[in-house]
Amino acid sequence: MLLERALEGDELSISRLLTKIERMTNEGLESLQELMKRSGKAHVIGITGSPGAGKSTLIGELIKEYAKRNHKVGVILIDPSSPFSMGSFMGNRIRLTGVEEKDVFVRSIASRGHLGGISSEALMLIEALDGLGFDRIIVETVGAGQTDTDVVNGVHTIAVVNVPGTGDEIQALKAGIMEIGDIYIVNKADKVEAEMLFNVLRFAIDTAEVDYRDGWKPRLVKTVAIKGIGIKETVDLFEEHLKYVVEKGLFERRIRERRVKMMELLLRKKVNDVVTKVVKENNGIISKKLNEERDIIGILNEMYKLVKETL
Amino acid sequence: MLLERALEGDELSISRLLTKIERMTNEGLESLQELMKRSGKAHVIGITGSPGAGKSTLIGELIKEYAKRNHKVGVILIDPSSPFSMGSFMGNRIRLTGVEEKDVFVRSIASRGHLGGISSEALMLIEALDGLGFDRIIVETVGAGQTDTDVVNGVHTIAVVNVPGTGDEIQALKAGIMEIGDIYIVNKADKVEAEMLFNVLRFAIDTAEVDYRDGWKPRLVKTVAIKGIGIKETVDLFEEHLKYVVEKGLFERRIRERRVKMMELLLRKKVNDVVTKVVKENNGIISKKLNEERDIIGILNEMYKLVKETL
Repeated sequence: MLLERALEGDELSISRLLTKIERMTNEGLESLQELMKRSGKAHVIGITGSPGAGKSTLIGELIKEYAKRNHKVGVILIDPSSPFSMGSFMGNRIRLTGVEEKDVFVRSIASRGHLGGISSEALMLIEALDGLGFDRIIVETVGAGQTDTDVVNGVHTIAVVNVPGTGDEIQALKAGIMEIGDIYIVNKADKVEAEMLFNVLRFAIDTAEVDYRDGWKPRLVKTVAIKGIGIKETVDLFEEHLKYVVEKGLFERRIRERRVKMMELLLRKKVNDVVTKVVKENNGIISKKLNEERDIIGILNEMYKLVKETL
Repeated sequence: MLLERALEGDELSISRLLTKIERMTNEGLESLQELMKRSGKAHVIGITGSPGAGKSTLIGELIKEYAKRNHKVGVILIDPSSPFSMGSFMGNRIRLTGVEEKDVFVRSIASRGHLGGISSEALMLIEALDGLGFDRIIVETVGAGQTDTDVVNGVHTIAVVNVPGTGDEIQALKAGIMEIGDIYIVNKADKVEAEMLFNVLRFAIDTAEVDYRDGWKPRLVKTVAIKGIGIKETVDLFEEHLKYVVEKGLFERRIRERRVKMMELLLRKKVNDVVTKVVKENNGIISKKLNEERDIIGILNEMYKLVKETL
């Protein structure tokens, strides 16, 4: 059986199983149900930051460091412009010296043409990889939009990657991003502007008037991912935050929240598939009515009734 | 009446009316219905590009150029990090010399906490501003995600803003963005890397194997928005594309598509509000069942039934 082979660590089987889960086939949902009996052990870390922040390189280094510490790492990529997702992961992979194939699994999620789909897929993948025995799961996102908000709510630790000299500091302050991160990483810290960015972040953290998530005061770390600098310190911080989360009783709570969110998103997907179907089948009528009558309230109510009947 | 005062051009009334429309109150939807009887005249232009590409400055200059040509410009901002939306529009506004207050209206859409909400709001705003007599409507987006896809389908002309030296060229080629733009703007064209970006884009356009949207071969233009350079040429290109779209009979067709899309999104919003309600009310039960039984298929079916009953 596919699930059994996946549990044994067979890479191709894992890949095929995850596809079935994403597509919400019966076998997929049944397997997810089985995996949920084993899941709830992984430390889930969200890594967010603008395209070009060097997230992929950083994640490659984090995988190596985790492997050294005998962890199995699952990686989920939601950033559509990630070099990882663009097929160049193989290139990165070669650089993952010292990491055994079975100790890492990378999966990317395409982002076009979904509706509420990406988030539910991401949460299902977290659940599945957790159940498959990956005890550290990294979710890479671009840190904007509804998807990220949904996913962020399901992770234990949020790391925000900033890069010097890109205006990240200003954007961060403006967008109130200081409220979401548990750990702020200043990557490419060998750039001259790094000190400035570091100080701006320090200042923002120290003077913030928000209540930090779970009462944890955000921590700062400098990395030069491409040279492997600061990686150990970063993983140390992740582990420190994990310890904090466990002690505060938040580890289990976040998993429960993640699962409820996943159910909500699965439900939304199912219901929205019906909406899509109804709209598609009535496209011509809607267009004609809009043109002739412009009675949007009437048309909306009719369509709403149709959805109810079709559900 | 609010609608009448808005039609007379009163800024505060327009603002209040749009809020009612966004919130889908009865008065809002009835007003939108009225406005749709007058709409269908505006040339709708989507302007997309990464944060930091200088879109806001560019749009400010475009407004001035359109005003010179006796157009009334409505602007809708979806980019959450836009300096426009961040409240600094007043600063930009002061620089809009030669533009009368009644000839421009800027509205930004907050992006957090919505589900399918931004797109439907954007399409409603396009419809409303069109009906209020703004004959050129600019929609600013970040060019990523479902919202942009939805909105892009509803505009006549898509302009993509690229900036030299940011890796935009690579990202553009990779993400297949060449398929979506009608006009490519190389902003900050006084930078040394501008020529390279221009040539990469030219090459990508000339060698692309895709069928361009509506058979229009994308055009290229250089701007230095901050100095007002290339603005006239950009608006000339927009008008040329408008002429093409009208001649091909696509002007009306796109409006019809936009309206059907708007109805679909309004329907989705209405249906998803019910899903939200059902999940909220049953949160505890779902969480408990997930914990005890892990029977996701059963729970999903139960919730689905509840949604049907609640609709």
